[in-house]
Amino acid sequence: MTMTNNDANITMMPIGTVRTPFGTTGEIPKGPDAKHDADGVIEIAPAFEAGLQDIEGFSHLYILWHFHRVDGYDLVAYPPSDDRPHGVFATRSPFRPSPIGLTVVELVRREGRQLRVRGVDMLDGTPVLDIKPYLSSIPAAEIRRGWLAAAERRRTTSG
Amino acid sequence: MTMTNNDANITMMPIGTVRTPFGTTGEIPKGPDAKHDADGVIEIAPAFEAGLQDIEGFSHLYILWHFHRVDGYDLVAYPPSDDRPHGVFATRSPFRPSPIGLTVVELVRREGRQLRVRGVDMLDGTPVLDIKPYLSSIPAAEIRRGWLAAAERRRTTSG
Repeated sequence: MTMTNNDANITMMPIGTVRTPFGTTGEIPKGPDAKHDADGVIEIAPAFEAGLQDIEGFSHLYILWHFHRVDGYDLVAYPPSDDRPHGVFATRSPFRPSPIGLTVVELVRREGRQLRVRGVDMLDGTPVLDIKPYLSSIPAAEIRRGWLAAAERRRTTSG
Repeated sequence: MTMTNNDANITMMPIGTVRTPFGTTGEIPKGPDAKHDADGVIEIAPAFEAGLQDIEGFSHLYILWHFHRVDGYDLVAYPPSDDRPHGVFATRSPFRPSPIGLTVVELVRREGRQLRVRGVDMLDGTPVLDIKPYLSSIPAAEIRRGWLAAAERRRTTSG
């Protein structure tokens, strides 16, 4: 497989910004016991408001956003939920080759260009790249969570 | 809210390519009755293989990819599942300001740099931007699907 220079010319267009309670990364709940129920507001730029038509009918949304404070990446990650390293693509580490974050939020209410949402886990002021409707999910019983489940078992056993 | 020029300088780094059965968009199952169970192979570039460590333990993955054949965007979309227009952020239209696709696939097997997956819906040769583990899902009973559910009801009623 070859990677041409052209591959790098992928233009992303931020459509807005998220307001969250988190001014620093240390404030964002992380790890296995983290609750992700923080309220936030996605503020869409006026130029993109027409793209929100009918979004209010969806209970949940995918938010794709830019890790805008991150510089560079590391193929090996040390997640807070484990004492062992894992490949970056098996984690949610922010140090990724393509610095895109993905969060599922509950849409509480739309107010014009503002989407009031629950479940934010990004820094205040984070640029939003895209929003997609959440249409279906994998049944919980079918999901295997690899090293994360193993790390949880080790913690439970040890203490 | 202001958008500075700096916002456009978001560098995406393709980490590999997807091989799928779909050579043209017309072959990709679309619409409400579409089954997404096509097999595909995500081929990760050698430089990024270390990022796959421990990924084999996860049953499902998020694949973030580039709509590489799309040029431009439209804030209003006409999905195949409805005869009415909707805002692009309330649809899965490929004509998005940030041309990122998102697909949940089942990880069937890892073979070195190749991930054999089920549930692909992208064109053969699509550049992959990121892979993330699928860790949890919204219970089906809690998901509202807005205009999509309404369009399905209209079709059922009309015959």
